[in-house]
Amino acid sequence: MRTSPQICKESGHIYFSHDDGVLRLLDQRLLPGREEYFSCADTQDAVYALKEMVVRGAPAIGVTAAWGCVLAASELLRRGADAAVDWENELEKLLEILADARPTAVNLVWSVKHMRGLWLSRVPDSLPRLLAVWKAEAARLQAEDIAVNKRMGAYGAECIDRGDTVMTHCNAGVLATAGYGTALGVIYAAHDQKKNIRVIANETRPFLQGARLTAYELKARGVPVTVACDNACALLMKRGMVQKVIVGADRIAANGDTANKIGTYGVALLAKAHKVPVYVAAPLSTIDRACPDGDAIPIETRPTHEVTHMGGSPVVPEDVPVYNFAFDVTPAELIAGIITEQGVLAPPYGRSIAEAFARAGADNP
Amino acid sequence: MRTSPQICKESGHIYFSHDDGVLRLLDQRLLPGREEYFSCADTQDAVYALKEMVVRGAPAIGVTAAWGCVLAASELLRRGADAAVDWENELEKLLEILADARPTAVNLVWSVKHMRGLWLSRVPDSLPRLLAVWKAEAARLQAEDIAVNKRMGAYGAECIDRGDTVMTHCNAGVLATAGYGTALGVIYAAHDQKKNIRVIANETRPFLQGARLTAYELKARGVPVTVACDNACALLMKRGMVQKVIVGADRIAANGDTANKIGTYGVALLAKAHKVPVYVAAPLSTIDRACPDGDAIPIETRPTHEVTHMGGSPVVPEDVPVYNFAFDVTPAELIAGIITEQGVLAPPYGRSIAEAFARAGADNP
Repeated sequence: MRTSPQICKESGHIYFSHDDGVLRLLDQRLLPGREEYFSCADTQDAVYALKEMVVRGAPAIGVTAAWGCVLAASELLRRGADAAVDWENELEKLLEILADARPTAVNLVWSVKHMRGLWLSRVPDSLPRLLAVWKAEAARLQAEDIAVNKRMGAYGAECIDRGDTVMTHCNAGVLATAGYGTALGVIYAAHDQKKNIRVIANETRPFLQGARLTAYELKARGVPVTVACDNACALLMKRGMVQKVIVGADRIAANGDTANKIGTYGVALLAKAHKVPVYVAAPLSTIDRACPDGDAIPIETRPTHEVTHMGGSPVVPEDVPVYNFAFDVTPAELIAGIITEQGVLAPPYGRSIAEAFARAGADNP
Repeated sequence: MRTSPQICKESGHIYFSHDDGVLRLLDQRLLPGREEYFSCADTQDAVYALKEMVVRGAPAIGVTAAWGCVLAASELLRRGADAAVDWENELEKLLEILADARPTAVNLVWSVKHMRGLWLSRVPDSLPRLLAVWKAEAARLQAEDIAVNKRMGAYGAECIDRGDTVMTHCNAGVLATAGYGTALGVIYAAHDQKKNIRVIANETRPFLQGARLTAYELKARGVPVTVACDNACALLMKRGMVQKVIVGADRIAANGDTANKIGTYGVALLAKAHKVPVYVAAPLSTIDRACPDGDAIPIETRPTHEVTHMGGSPVVPEDVPVYNFAFDVTPAELIAGIITEQGVLAPPYGRSIAEAFARAGADNP
């Protein structure tokens, strides 16, 4: 386990130790001030970490959920559930709790469904054998996510021109994935190609993923980054200070409508008004073909204290209600391209998404 | 001097005491948590209060600057400058420092120019006589601002329909003026007419005037208010949760282009995309006919710590630069009407503004 800003240069912020069976997560609530790990010994810990955003970002949520399945199996094993008749029922219950931790990122459900499918298809006849299978699969998914992000980065870098200033919203980097990142992966790839790019990170209220996390990892990697309040977006575009927008995604519908961090839809509308192209970078596992369009994507409402308090102090008068929608949906028509591990998809997305899945084979349900 | 939330029901947050010659300002940096007054004994204190946003909001800045002139005169008097040959030069220097405290709100320059004009036109031959004249004039300007806001409220309430939810950005209320408010004055008038309105206050990063100040005074007055992150604006409009946008202004150019708190331009573009009308409420003294259009309005850049720190703790990694533009310009074509004490001006604003000034007489330079 690494404990320095080195963490951001590759992977390592999601770390399962085979020695003690504990999943350690770099606690993203404390960044950039403190680099501390949050330990998950069982499913409940993993659910807490997901709900409280110790870890966040759709692909990172997916990988954490895979390890959450491992924690569920080992928890039951510790409780001696293997001997009982109904360990299967107990396990089903834990997986359900895990899958319900957060509603919007499809990667959570995808991951739990994937792990469950492996269990049911192979019918491992004992909990220890299932645990071994799942450990291997979670590690494979984690490594695969990084590989996918690197492929995405290579494709996406083509969308970035030399000298561009790229605006990004929220954090879709190392910390939002198993490593390397989706939107920031594209930026890293363009930076490594010496395209001389700069980044504007929208601070991304209320959780400040842009100010705290995106700036943190771009700085660690030596990519020039400037933080701006979300309110500055229109002015920066008006002044010609933004050439591209690249964001990640929490769930993409079959028609290309994209749910991402609250504010993304606004950024995309402002980009349209200033003729700045908007790209979404996400693996195919973030595309939910069961959702025909954005209206079918559930939007999470999060606790109000994220808005009402800062550093423990109230910034909203007592008893004044607040809205805290965690995501919004950017309609497909505002998106210039969807960068995936199968290439950069172009509109109309209904067709290009279907073709990408066909190319990828029958890997995804 | 009042010290309870009663403050928000009328006026009183800018309070000059004739007993001790001290200007007391409700310290807006501490709201809503603490209601404390900041004392200004001389020009330097007033300049500090303006720069650090102890008091902010274009009309409130204007009134504070008028009292700042009073403080300058009494400061010189205390220093015995009246006896010296060049008290006029000393005073000119202090007025210049005062007028330079902040660049965007035209009310600051307007106010100092107005007080200076009074001095030069009447040629009071002694500092004590000038001080008396200025005290009376500052009090008159303060009372006049409230009266103007009430007239504006009456006109503006016509733009609000029964049952509307009105979004506002920043704070253009009691605390931004001598009392009653510009944009919030319109809301108070509609509320008093029992139009059953609701308000969404954008939190307005980085200084959080919406969350801290607008919510504070709307709550004190019993107007239903919900706070939302600036990032939620587009989603709220998309869901049909916003019928009108009303904002204040820091400076309006002769063609109607309007400088207001950073983010206003973005809100106006998002409103256009969702067919929500945007109104600006401001007295004629906020219109700067010497500025032909928005490009001529200077935009203040404020200290970075407003963005990098929250409650004293860093939220941006060390050495990462930030943008902190305090204002942006909303082009006239995005504005459905400019609510003034001379009625609601309609586009084209070049003409309607000129007509409003003609109606108002030659009061404004």
